[in-house]
Amino acid sequence: MSDRVTITEVGLRDGLQNQPVPVATADKLRLAGLLLDAGLTSLEVTSFVSPKAVPQLADAEALLAGLPARAGVDYMALVPNMRGYERGTAAGARAVALVLSATETLNRRNINMSLDQARAVCREVIGRAKAEGVFVRAYVAAACACPYEGQTPLARVVALTEEMVAAGADQVAIADTIGAGNPAQIRDIVTALAGGVGTDRLALHLHDTRGLALAMAWAGLEAGIRRFDAAFGGLGGCPFAPGAAGNLATEDLVFMLSEAGIETGIDWRRLFDAVALAETLLDRPLGGRMAAWWRQAQAKEAQAKEAARQEMPA
Amino acid sequence: MSDRVTITEVGLRDGLQNQPVPVATADKLRLAGLLLDAGLTSLEVTSFVSPKAVPQLADAEALLAGLPARAGVDYMALVPNMRGYERGTAAGARAVALVLSATETLNRRNINMSLDQARAVCREVIGRAKAEGVFVRAYVAAACACPYEGQTPLARVVALTEEMVAAGADQVAIADTIGAGNPAQIRDIVTALAGGVGTDRLALHLHDTRGLALAMAWAGLEAGIRRFDAAFGGLGGCPFAPGAAGNLATEDLVFMLSEAGIETGIDWRRLFDAVALAETLLDRPLGGRMAAWWRQAQAKEAQAKEAARQEMPA
Repeated sequence: MSDRVTITEVGLRDGLQNQPVPVATADKLRLAGLLLDAGLTSLEVTSFVSPKAVPQLADAEALLAGLPARAGVDYMALVPNMRGYERGTAAGARAVALVLSATETLNRRNINMSLDQARAVCREVIGRAKAEGVFVRAYVAAACACPYEGQTPLARVVALTEEMVAAGADQVAIADTIGAGNPAQIRDIVTALAGGVGTDRLALHLHDTRGLALAMAWAGLEAGIRRFDAAFGGLGGCPFAPGAAGNLATEDLVFMLSEAGIETGIDWRRLFDAVALAETLLDRPLGGRMAAWWRQAQAKEAQAKEAARQEMPA
Repeated sequence: MSDRVTITEVGLRDGLQNQPVPVATADKLRLAGLLLDAGLTSLEVTSFVSPKAVPQLADAEALLAGLPARAGVDYMALVPNMRGYERGTAAGARAVALVLSATETLNRRNINMSLDQARAVCREVIGRAKAEGVFVRAYVAAACACPYEGQTPLARVVALTEEMVAAGADQVAIADTIGAGNPAQIRDIVTALAGGVGTDRLALHLHDTRGLALAMAWAGLEAGIRRFDAAFGGLGGCPFAPGAAGNLATEDLVFMLSEAGIETGIDWRRLFDAVALAETLLDRPLGGRMAAWWRQAQAKEAQAKEAARQEMPA
């Protein structure tokens, strides 16, 4: 498998939106800089949601204005509805993401709309974005399971994905929002979609709540997915979904792909610079499933170097 | 995928052989009882290795004698050589496992033999076991990488596996002894073997050193593997291989398979009884990648029950 995989770093949005410690705009920009240095070229950086609902992302305009323009780098902003779209594009966003929860209850609880109303809002914003030349992604959220309704029917996920593509979405992210999926389910969803809308427009957005994210990513990859979301340090969790824990850690995913010979353009070792800064900013330990091994390996290497230095003649 | 998967629980051998805290025979028997209660039917319980080299397993005879005879339950004992085979079978072992490291250096460092010598010893013991009606498994160790030689050539793994099968081995366990493999490598090894010796005789023995074990297990499953080794609580690590960390946790593997609709006959919730006892015995926290989520879920459930109890009329 020599294909290339693209990773959208969602830590600045999905990762920070739920943190109890606020992060200043200047610090978010430092994090973004380190993520770019590690080789990321696609970042979902914020959400134009109500500052009252998500104060952590109240600086959306300032953040977007402060990000460095770089060739080949795309910044995406989440927009909850048409008002968010207008705020986002007025602030300069050239790529937006919409969230369509796959179940009736999650839509009602999160945005006080029925599934049908939410679908209509998404179609409307997608149409506007297409008309204005703005790149638009749709999340199909709770694609594996809903915290209120249990397992999400596969046919629903396929139908909503096809509807968003038909409405003009450039990309659809199949999102296991609460990390309740498993590799067989991911394989089945992707396989079902591959025969219809194809895998080119798809991304897979996974959470590692139950330790299965890397196995799900591998299952998705084998089924044809070549674009994944991930959050550095395994930051994340949905503030509205009970039971949600961290996103799939970017360093875990890049490491697994790199070991498997699959190119991402990202250096997982350098991702730890962003993880280290986030640990300082958020005042808690971060890191995915390979962080403990890597830190131990680094400590051993440092010890060996120090021993060699002490043995050198003065 | 509705196939059935068989898991060999190796915690009592691969898990305990490297622990700094000794575990009494009676406590090992209590652990074995809990593992049987959880539904395990295949256990590698000890090694007839020199008690000086591995004092943790010096009670091999007493342990084997103390295990309950149950219909459909197989106990396996590791035997390093013909002397170990004779000790093991004299103690009543009806299933033995041999270790053949796939690289020259690992054989020299571990058992002071060349690879050719080690192969000859394995063939000889396998021949004797077959003649005496003893079930015999061969491990092809360091099948992904060797701590001294780096990545192990695929052709070597295939050749050694075929040689052990030709010699009469009932089963060959492809072992990523130091947890240095990746899902693509596992897929490639299993696919290469599937076309020759087939997958029926194969087992996959994984370590979770770098967080990739579940993804490797999934890749092996998709390539046709239906038998895995695992250790409850993620216990483990090879005492001779630098960098080795815990085995793939049995509860992680059973959980992933169960969620994916694949039957193992094992209840992952009940495995936590054995994990809890091992934590007491070894005086340290244990558990694989889903343990934190499960413990949190249980705590929430207990809180909810307590709240409901307090609201009930007296």
